[in-house]
Amino acid sequence: MMKLVLVRHGESEWNKKNLFTGWMDVDLSDKGHEEAKAAGQLLKAEGYDFDICFTSYLKRAIHTLNHILDEMDRDWLEVVKSWKLNERHYGALQGLNKAETAEKYGEEQVKIWRRSFSTKPPVLDPNDDRSAKKSPAYRDVDPALLPDCESLETTIERAVPYFNEVIRPEMEAGKRVIIAAHGNSLRALVKYFDNISEEDIIGVNIPTGTPLVYEFDDSFKPIRHYYLGDQEALKKKMEAVANQGKKQA
Amino acid sequence: MMKLVLVRHGESEWNKKNLFTGWMDVDLSDKGHEEAKAAGQLLKAEGYDFDICFTSYLKRAIHTLNHILDEMDRDWLEVVKSWKLNERHYGALQGLNKAETAEKYGEEQVKIWRRSFSTKPPVLDPNDDRSAKKSPAYRDVDPALLPDCESLETTIERAVPYFNEVIRPEMEAGKRVIIAAHGNSLRALVKYFDNISEEDIIGVNIPTGTPLVYEFDDSFKPIRHYYLGDQEALKKKMEAVANQGKKQA
Repeated sequence: MMKLVLVRHGESEWNKKNLFTGWMDVDLSDKGHEEAKAAGQLLKAEGYDFDICFTSYLKRAIHTLNHILDEMDRDWLEVVKSWKLNERHYGALQGLNKAETAEKYGEEQVKIWRRSFSTKPPVLDPNDDRSAKKSPAYRDVDPALLPDCESLETTIERAVPYFNEVIRPEMEAGKRVIIAAHGNSLRALVKYFDNISEEDIIGVNIPTGTPLVYEFDDSFKPIRHYYLGDQEALKKKMEAVANQGKKQA
Repeated sequence: MMKLVLVRHGESEWNKKNLFTGWMDVDLSDKGHEEAKAAGQLLKAEGYDFDICFTSYLKRAIHTLNHILDEMDRDWLEVVKSWKLNERHYGALQGLNKAETAEKYGEEQVKIWRRSFSTKPPVLDPNDDRSAKKSPAYRDVDPALLPDCESLETTIERAVPYFNEVIRPEMEAGKRVIIAAHGNSLRALVKYFDNISEEDIIGVNIPTGTPLVYEFDDSFKPIRHYYLGDQEALKKKMEAVANQGKKQA
């Protein structure tokens, strides 16, 4: 039996401000830092340990992992960072707030971008300062691979192959793995593991800073999954996320 | 021309308490965290950038590097951790304070352990809770390789081959490298680069949290080295370190 732990980063500065974030490299809010530390304390209390860690190129995920490792006294563990675990790229919407976006593109269109599986938001001009093609973080990546906008579908198309090619072999070699990443890159993995439909995955909301454990059998078939921690508090958190989704839609 | 940046971690909790630290995994003090952030701000202000980072298995060095990367907005950079960049292992002295040590072994003996190039401190019992052999951090390392105590000489014997086998090839491939490590693992490298004698290296004190830049020609001959930052403040810091050394001896 193999176990995999997924953690979505804690609240970021822009979650608070209600801006579309995507690949914009904003830090955790104070609350986000606390959520990440609590996730580390919980993993430690539940007796979890790891051999290798994966995260994205975005500091809100990296800092979440750093806090977890520090709380677990596992600062020395190997950490592998990949842009393929980044959040969904939100194209030209990145950095805009909800009101601006609705004004510019209309409420109905924004709803489609947020809720559709395969519709991409408007492309971000590669010469825009917000473009990954202008960021030093991606200077060693083939620009042809870097997105200018992504749907959940195209997020899956880069996150799942990365999982299969890089992460899964580590698990099959007996290593205990944690992935600290983002709402949509983790949704991509969860959809793949549980074979969730394109319609249903849109309704799956992974709460921030809450370790999600997947168990697989030797042929990599998922046996079960569960969140760690106070299940009553978790239920409230997930309801809040779902309601937030409704309000924002 | 190749550049290499070395940074000694900031003040640790045990520096403050005047305890022998070695491989004990103590965190930075508040001052140490601030020193590390200042080093990152300085590197950024001076226009430095890196492609790959190296550090030890000890959190005071890892946290120093994390602060530097965060201040430079380079959280996404690859970080390689190795125990071969750890501080000198201080054997059975680890965790003892100066007064206890002098009482137990005599002032003269302590002076020799601190000042000698090749004399090792007393061996730490592998069954002692302080032993690396009992720490999860070294569970994947061949126990035969793990020291129970080290002199500066034996520290060099593991740090310099690691540099030549792992770090130097990255530099020769054109990568810009930063190493965040410890007083004695950095001394080991500095002795090797500048061919410093066994007597003279004992008098070399690398100040904490101060980027030390080495420049090498294409055949890896060191051209020059220098510390970044306010040179007047640095001079005072180095005098303070030297005086502290005298008082402690």
